[in-house]
Amino acid sequence: MEHKFEEKLQLLPAGEIDARLGKVTAAMAQADIDSVLISDNANLFYLTGRIFCGYIYVSRNGGLRYFLRRPSILTGDGVHRIRKPEDMGPLLADTVKADTRVGFTVDDTPYSTVMRLRKAIGVTDIANGSAVMRAARSVKTPMEVKLIAESGTRLSDIYRQVPRLYREGMTDIELQIEIERVLRLHGCLGKFPVSGTELEIFMGNVLTGDNADAPSPYDFAMGGAGLGPSLPVGANGTIIRPGKPVMVDMNANFDGYLADSTRCYITGDCPDEARRANDLSRRICEAIANAARPGVEARAMYELAMNMVAEAGMADFFMGHRSHAGFVGHGIGITVNELPVLAPRSRDVFAAGNVIAIEPKFVIPGIGAVGVENSYEIMAEGPARRLTDAPEDIVSLD
Amino acid sequence: MEHKFEEKLQLLPAGEIDARLGKVTAAMAQADIDSVLISDNANLFYLTGRIFCGYIYVSRNGGLRYFLRRPSILTGDGVHRIRKPEDMGPLLADTVKADTRVGFTVDDTPYSTVMRLRKAIGVTDIANGSAVMRAARSVKTPMEVKLIAESGTRLSDIYRQVPRLYREGMTDIELQIEIERVLRLHGCLGKFPVSGTELEIFMGNVLTGDNADAPSPYDFAMGGAGLGPSLPVGANGTIIRPGKPVMVDMNANFDGYLADSTRCYITGDCPDEARRANDLSRRICEAIANAARPGVEARAMYELAMNMVAEAGMADFFMGHRSHAGFVGHGIGITVNELPVLAPRSRDVFAAGNVIAIEPKFVIPGIGAVGVENSYEIMAEGPARRLTDAPEDIVSLD
Repeated sequence: MEHKFEEKLQLLPAGEIDARLGKVTAAMAQADIDSVLISDNANLFYLTGRIFCGYIYVSRNGGLRYFLRRPSILTGDGVHRIRKPEDMGPLLADTVKADTRVGFTVDDTPYSTVMRLRKAIGVTDIANGSAVMRAARSVKTPMEVKLIAESGTRLSDIYRQVPRLYREGMTDIELQIEIERVLRLHGCLGKFPVSGTELEIFMGNVLTGDNADAPSPYDFAMGGAGLGPSLPVGANGTIIRPGKPVMVDMNANFDGYLADSTRCYITGDCPDEARRANDLSRRICEAIANAARPGVEARAMYELAMNMVAEAGMADFFMGHRSHAGFVGHGIGITVNELPVLAPRSRDVFAAGNVIAIEPKFVIPGIGAVGVENSYEIMAEGPARRLTDAPEDIVSLD
Repeated sequence: MEHKFEEKLQLLPAGEIDARLGKVTAAMAQADIDSVLISDNANLFYLTGRIFCGYIYVSRNGGLRYFLRRPSILTGDGVHRIRKPEDMGPLLADTVKADTRVGFTVDDTPYSTVMRLRKAIGVTDIANGSAVMRAARSVKTPMEVKLIAESGTRLSDIYRQVPRLYREGMTDIELQIEIERVLRLHGCLGKFPVSGTELEIFMGNVLTGDNADAPSPYDFAMGGAGLGPSLPVGANGTIIRPGKPVMVDMNANFDGYLADSTRCYITGDCPDEARRANDLSRRICEAIANAARPGVEARAMYELAMNMVAEAGMADFFMGHRSHAGFVGHGIGITVNELPVLAPRSRDVFAAGNVIAIEPKFVIPGIGAVGVENSYEIMAEGPARRLTDAPEDIVSLD
């Protein structure tokens, strides 16, 4: 089957589509699912390299069908223009009849849309196609790793520029806005893709002082009160003061693939407690990067971190103080919350090609948030490869 | 029943909550729904003035129950801390038994979440609670109108500053980034709330030249190729040239309530066709603002616009050229796509307190996009009140 995409739309090379499809069909076999009807943007992007309004039907029996509502970016076998979901029914009738378990992207598509799609293609039971796609996407292709690594390099270059963006008397949000501007001028798309609908954030977090300890509605490593009750996370207008670290954790979505990295900065003298916590964070990152090898359980990384934290007597400040986030790292890629998850109840096992962010962070009362976050590729052999290389010390803003 | 919120969290005054609840229960009665379990951020925000992780159960029989996962922002009668959705089951058992038709926010909550919630509270059939909430939210309270009007004033003030942000040789995205920065420095939250999961955009659109005619996957008035295939909408790096209008349609989310407005700018001489189209856009806005009164059908506004466009011989260029968007305006509020919709198949009828954006726009081949967009409040008597007051001429950047 051949598909011909309009050239200038930068869609994926044919070999890359095949590699990704291979991962998807393997995950489908593992889950005993015959086909998946994809309707969410992240997964449409994964299988085409482009977001469009439409659907993709992937069948283990070999069928790959594109249904395009707009724009008309693709022609060839198995490509259909449709006006509405119901137009898929007759086109898919034979395929659906042969597929006994059909998955839908149920974790990222509204209930009413899934119900309409199910009826449109004549399926009775709904299997979890989101879980299949999450599993497939957890192991990146070399091209995906390269894109994430490029995002990591670009973000790290901008983190090196933060001291020249700082001016005395600035608030957290004022510094964040200058970082946002430089990110955008260097090609950052701004959009912060998240799986599911619950988490909301705008381009990242800059936290200083006590605001780091404000509890957030989201399961983020760090909170922050935010600028208003409709977006209660992140910077809240706190003036950056001498001796109070500034934690910078910004969006690095340059090309549809995210890197994730955090660095800390300070004006004036750095308190010893902050430096010690930051050093511990670095050592945890290194220990996890060294331990995270194919076949190792992801939850063991959380235990490893907790042991190091307990030994240092820092458990009260780890991943928050007033409230604690229950993880130390997470997969990244097209969205910021992919598999594997480095958390106590995680069932994930590392595989070569996983890309993860490790973020052991501390909130110290009276001082603020400190810690580093890096992105890593899990390698077939040896320690995980770091993809974010800005200096890891608490950097002076002066 | 009394609820006590933590003071500093800026939640709604009690009278405001009652006013909004009154609209919700009226819409529930209209739809013959007994209760709604709210699980999406926009509707949680509507009924509390704050986003949190949790749920609200609204019953026409008088019950209003809050279920908070995090943070702990509320205490009082009917307020429950829960760890997981299943904890709601026993707490709601009696209420649910009395309610025969229970709605869920099915258009804004993933399928898997709705299924889990339904099971958690022991409901068999799922009614459309999103439709109920959309109907309730389409008529704003005076406080909501005030917030939208304030956002409109702030956006309009920033639109007046656009000429001083322009430098010769800039690209569309470079100008957009400077506007984003000024918006953010004036308190814009950045987040662009949209109902549903399909539309994605980052802080708005700046379009110039032929890029305005690039078809987008989204049902926006104007397209644009965007910076990359993972966000194929908006500015694409086109250099701003003399005689080519620049259309600026940016996010005005300052406090959780959006205004929506578009203005055009130009460097060098303005082509007559552009000026004529812009004048026609202004006249259409005025005609609709004058006709949009309580009891009038929203779809009649689309006909009114189409008649004026046809009379001017501009139908080929209206709401796009290569592809045409099928509406001329839409409700705004907490999200950018609320009711009423000013489109040919709309069943909406105007009511006092609707807040709408009217955006009759044109794409002229070889020139680009022109037109104005304003936000309006539908009044009990007289023409709709304009909430966005930047000058409507095509403004010189020189």
